[in-house]
Amino acid sequence: MNETKKPLKVVALAGGVGGAKLAVGLQEALAPGALTVIVNTGDDFEHWGLSISPDLDTVTYNLAGINHPDNGWGRINESYRTLETMSQLGGEDWFRLGDCDLALHLRRTEWLRQGITLTEVTDRLRRSLGIPSPIVPMSDRPVRTLVHTDEGDLPFQHYFVRLRCAPILIDLTFVGADEAKLPEPAQAALHAAHVIVLCPSNPYLSIDPILSIPGLRHFLRQTKIPVIAVSPIVSGQAVKGPAAKIMKELGVLISPHTVVDRYEDFLTGFVIDNADRDWCESIQIPTLLTDTIMRDLASKRRLAEQVLTFAQQLSEVAQKA
Amino acid sequence: MNETKKPLKVVALAGGVGGAKLAVGLQEALAPGALTVIVNTGDDFEHWGLSISPDLDTVTYNLAGINHPDNGWGRINESYRTLETMSQLGGEDWFRLGDCDLALHLRRTEWLRQGITLTEVTDRLRRSLGIPSPIVPMSDRPVRTLVHTDEGDLPFQHYFVRLRCAPILIDLTFVGADEAKLPEPAQAALHAAHVIVLCPSNPYLSIDPILSIPGLRHFLRQTKIPVIAVSPIVSGQAVKGPAAKIMKELGVLISPHTVVDRYEDFLTGFVIDNADRDWCESIQIPTLLTDTIMRDLASKRRLAEQVLTFAQQLSEVAQKA
Repeated sequence: MNETKKPLKVVALAGGVGGAKLAVGLQEALAPGALTVIVNTGDDFEHWGLSISPDLDTVTYNLAGINHPDNGWGRINESYRTLETMSQLGGEDWFRLGDCDLALHLRRTEWLRQGITLTEVTDRLRRSLGIPSPIVPMSDRPVRTLVHTDEGDLPFQHYFVRLRCAPILIDLTFVGADEAKLPEPAQAALHAAHVIVLCPSNPYLSIDPILSIPGLRHFLRQTKIPVIAVSPIVSGQAVKGPAAKIMKELGVLISPHTVVDRYEDFLTGFVIDNADRDWCESIQIPTLLTDTIMRDLASKRRLAEQVLTFAQQLSEVAQKA
Repeated sequence: MNETKKPLKVVALAGGVGGAKLAVGLQEALAPGALTVIVNTGDDFEHWGLSISPDLDTVTYNLAGINHPDNGWGRINESYRTLETMSQLGGEDWFRLGDCDLALHLRRTEWLRQGITLTEVTDRLRRSLGIPSPIVPMSDRPVRTLVHTDEGDLPFQHYFVRLRCAPILIDLTFVGADEAKLPEPAQAALHAAHVIVLCPSNPYLSIDPILSIPGLRHFLRQTKIPVIAVSPIVSGQAVKGPAAKIMKELGVLISPHTVVDRYEDFLTGFVIDNADRDWCESIQIPTLLTDTIMRDLASKRRLAEQVLTFAQQLSEVAQKA
């Protein structure tokens, strides 16, 4: 797998599992340290008195190669003895924190309480797991996704995990986003990047919170480098998670077209699955048609390399123009 | 085991394992709720950002019947996956927090951060474990045992666990004791008690911190009810822990006599092991000679019943006088 590495600096925007998969592919395809992942923190919350950052952890565990292969969250070879005991003691047990996972939350919480930034904490954790790629939260200040539903306003994890996305979504607010700021390492990585990739994460729950950070959307609009998105919608379904359900509830078409529309003000190129070939014609920007389902490390790397090659081609076309 | 329960209200002062064993015996010997255990909190500390109360937990786990049978701390059927992961992440691993044990520390820490008192937290935890006997910390405010040694001043757990009591002990300070106050449920239990028992806990590390709480020693001196101590020293050795080593370092005789001397201003009766028969003559207060080694539930209950019968006899003698 380690034959040729693309000599590029890349920034990926990612939420949870879908984003993490492509981030793994990009890390494999690039030289060590050439990938920076900017991660949604709208899902972050306090649980058992601990500061939990689900998307940061999913990206971290995936890039370290210790993620649970099926769950889409948490670690491989996990156990739940603290959770079982917590349940016996009458504590909350709807959010499944594993015994090994807990160590990371304990470290993060202790460091945050000492006044260390989430950016620094995240960097310490990824280094301690031997991950070559910087992982940066979208904000050091808390930004919290509030889900407006037919059952009232819900903090994100109550909507997402406790109620399993059952309530009908009406709208989303990213509380605190107006005062948030992209951490300096994220800004530096964006300015140094040759390509920016929006991973196939949920457009509403994962990418929108990142785009809500002041200045980022403006940066994406004015940058000369290619900005490529990979569609999380394939064949009218979300590869994983509630994106399709949300689109239905919002009254929009469950299609790659709906995804590209959300990014139309800044997107250079779009990547959709072979299964969605029929949508190509109606999409107004350069579109790469390929197999976007990432089953294993090889398919993650293959998709990442195709995305980067596509980006390089768009870049060359732009330079000639 | 449930034949006759002594119709008495009893307060026990206890530290860790030795105290917890006799507390179990007393709980067995008495009607449900008739025993209150006041527990040393001088060993409490913060670790991994969690509030740890080792003696409260040892007493709690013993009274719930879920203590580790050999360790003298922690739970039975414990695992250490969080600890192992913490170690891999570069975190501290010298204090062995188990996965199940962690649930209790997480609950306590979260409640304390919400402003709930340690007394209330401890009571909630013992109720959730189905323990009939109130367990009360010696203070809601932090009191911290500082160990002055030949290697400098050490926080208690660094002396006790990290350095395994290797440094030579010169003196002890109970930082914060002057401003501490016995929690109201402890005071109420003392005023309602028919007997007070000093469990066979370390006199220096476990009982002295409790006695350092303003007002308690005065109460013990003036009360008319029997105050009985059980010697933690048997045959010139501590049954468990560093009591004998400390006595040697302080230049005092490793004997029950040294123990009784520390309590001479308030003690009504003393209980020593058959092996220490020769010391009886030189002890100036009524002394019960019996088998004080608690190997199992039956021997814990037997010793507890003997202590209570002894106390009742002393009480009757006092009333006749």
